[in-house]
Amino acid sequence: MHTTHPLDANDPLAAKRAAFSLPDDVIYLDGNSLGVLPAHVPARMQEVVANEWGQSLIRGWNEHNWIDLPQRVGNRIARLVGAAPGTVVACDSTTINVFKVVSAALNLRPDRKVILSDSGNFPTDLYVAGGLAELLDQGHELRVVAPEDVEAAVTDELAVLMLTQVDYKTGRRHDMKALTEKAHAAGALVMWDLAHSAGAFPVDLAGANADFAVGCGYKYLNGGPGAPAFLYVAPEHKNHVRPPMTGWMGHEAPFAFDLDYKPASGVDRMRVGTPPVLSLSALDAALDVFDDVDMGDIRKKSVSLCELFIKEVEARCPDLKLVSPRNEAVRGSQVSFRFKEGYALMQALIANGVIGDFRAPDTVRFGFTPLYISHADVMGAVEKLETILADRLWDRDEFKKRQKVT
Amino acid sequence: MHTTHPLDANDPLAAKRAAFSLPDDVIYLDGNSLGVLPAHVPARMQEVVANEWGQSLIRGWNEHNWIDLPQRVGNRIARLVGAAPGTVVACDSTTINVFKVVSAALNLRPDRKVILSDSGNFPTDLYVAGGLAELLDQGHELRVVAPEDVEAAVTDELAVLMLTQVDYKTGRRHDMKALTEKAHAAGALVMWDLAHSAGAFPVDLAGANADFAVGCGYKYLNGGPGAPAFLYVAPEHKNHVRPPMTGWMGHEAPFAFDLDYKPASGVDRMRVGTPPVLSLSALDAALDVFDDVDMGDIRKKSVSLCELFIKEVEARCPDLKLVSPRNEAVRGSQVSFRFKEGYALMQALIANGVIGDFRAPDTVRFGFTPLYISHADVMGAVEKLETILADRLWDRDEFKKRQKVT
Repeated sequence: MHTTHPLDANDPLAAKRAAFSLPDDVIYLDGNSLGVLPAHVPARMQEVVANEWGQSLIRGWNEHNWIDLPQRVGNRIARLVGAAPGTVVACDSTTINVFKVVSAALNLRPDRKVILSDSGNFPTDLYVAGGLAELLDQGHELRVVAPEDVEAAVTDELAVLMLTQVDYKTGRRHDMKALTEKAHAAGALVMWDLAHSAGAFPVDLAGANADFAVGCGYKYLNGGPGAPAFLYVAPEHKNHVRPPMTGWMGHEAPFAFDLDYKPASGVDRMRVGTPPVLSLSALDAALDVFDDVDMGDIRKKSVSLCELFIKEVEARCPDLKLVSPRNEAVRGSQVSFRFKEGYALMQALIANGVIGDFRAPDTVRFGFTPLYISHADVMGAVEKLETILADRLWDRDEFKKRQKVT
Repeated sequence: MHTTHPLDANDPLAAKRAAFSLPDDVIYLDGNSLGVLPAHVPARMQEVVANEWGQSLIRGWNEHNWIDLPQRVGNRIARLVGAAPGTVVACDSTTINVFKVVSAALNLRPDRKVILSDSGNFPTDLYVAGGLAELLDQGHELRVVAPEDVEAAVTDELAVLMLTQVDYKTGRRHDMKALTEKAHAAGALVMWDLAHSAGAFPVDLAGANADFAVGCGYKYLNGGPGAPAFLYVAPEHKNHVRPPMTGWMGHEAPFAFDLDYKPASGVDRMRVGTPPVLSLSALDAALDVFDDVDMGDIRKKSVSLCELFIKEVEARCPDLKLVSPRNEAVRGSQVSFRFKEGYALMQALIANGVIGDFRAPDTVRFGFTPLYISHADVMGAVEKLETILADRLWDRDEFKKRQKVT
């Protein structure tokens, strides 16, 4: 396995690898599914569990300001996605936040009935938008087109354009600014799902004039399995939106225990129930690794890692067909290939210490997280891939028969 | 301070106190707001963070069966609330679960438009039901009556009767079985919020024939601040309900990534997004303390603690007026008193090591959690209360001026 590579020599992010607890025996190319544990998080969690909860008990809400965790964590994420302070809260799951945000957007466009999305969107976004249309029973339609047809499908029927910026399977990246502009010109609002964007490369929600966004805490933000998600409401909407779930944490005075609901000012109204202090604290701590990082450096290294991987795989593993865009300008921080026995291939790779993932029916997906992946890792992964293909290691019964679970 | 009390001598739960990490210097009568840390949870969380997340990474979904945590934890809670296996999932927040369940119930009664609740319900339940009615814009009405008027207000206009079994302020307990029967006779469905019931005394959802329930993970279940909540769907409804938020974790095959939504069979369809593994694992571990406990023993001790507290406070602190029902049959596991300077009184109590809480405008509330509270604690708390009132310790500027936050 390669332990050094010339492209790692002047990497300004090289030292960051030590900030993560990477298992010794794996090359982890799946940070776009579940981010790696930052090394300081276990001690911080111990402090939160044993002391904040164990010793402060109910006093923790004041002593440790638990109640503001959604905004504090939200503001830290805001910096990474080009959002102003006070426009992002960390809360609930990505799916629930899609529900909240699409509902709020529809309410701002009462005369329009079409939600436009694309077939490259992550299925849960489509499910929840379709379910919302059915729930409302007011004639809304979820219209799903191919990713390349989105621009042409933007018409003045649209209430909301709902897109995931980076396709979870292919890594194809939409042009956020251009599509937002086009939708606005047609009078529609735009929601961006940043699941595969936040922490992966510079995002500029304010510069793109996005109306709403949601995103995931457990991929490139390294918040831990099932970490809280986040949502963004643009400054011009945040005091006008109607949340569909009017919970006490979105009330202007939760602890007055009034019987009548009055929305909090700003993005806080999109909060619903009691914040999950343990998991928000893990995400909060995990975000420390971004404190001294330039997102431009992350992007530069991401492109370099992806380009090297594509070049080497295409040269040495010709049976794999590139699914991701070749042009880095329209690609996120992952590279996917097609292979007819993709599931068995990925099982063999994992058994040999290279962790990526598989997406049905035939895509193997590799995520490149510049904070803890090196060019040497890329070379090591390609080497394993080449060996497995040359020796047809994937063609063993155990890999073809095993039940797919994730 | 009393360190022994004759009523503690034959307490079958006495040994349980050692299963919790109680701070040395406090008498904690607020387990109905935030439960105490079970002593083994920090080590378990360390294992989950450092090993399950840190070492297994994405493989944790299979290796540790994270994906089934909502059902596994749900089944453990089911046992405590008289529900059959496979009818409870642990997920999201209580407020979000109220939204899901009330929406699902309304969908089963399309010709009816009234949601009945009472003014003793926790405000977030009322907010979210009212917000749902507004969101649906289909003529639904949230009707709120006094707790004692609920029975008379059950008519055949009702779609859903939505009640919290134990009043968070007063501890008054509704008769679950009788009200459910009455609502069913009127053709309505019933949802019970068990926030102050689950883990506090025996609940019999199946025996009461309840249709839906929700509850809280961080009060009597000791799951930690903001722990995941739970929801229950009766066996006769669980394959028919339409979830309002149709997320991928409620899909029959989440990892097929189909573009079309098909609900999972059973209560799983009420799940929405990726399960919060860290906080669900904390709740899962916390539930261990119930494994060898008889809920009947918990209730017996709870009544004994509450009766002793009422008797002693009424004898020694006549300025406090009992708000909770005197009859234990209609009381939960808390006791509340009214005092005009209740906020300052509670601040003085907390400063003197007795932690209860305050609910506006003038109620001081004391929760009795039999797993870790003794009769000696009750006597110690009353002694402090008596001293503070005799010395007018509450009448100091600092206690009257401090800003109320929780």
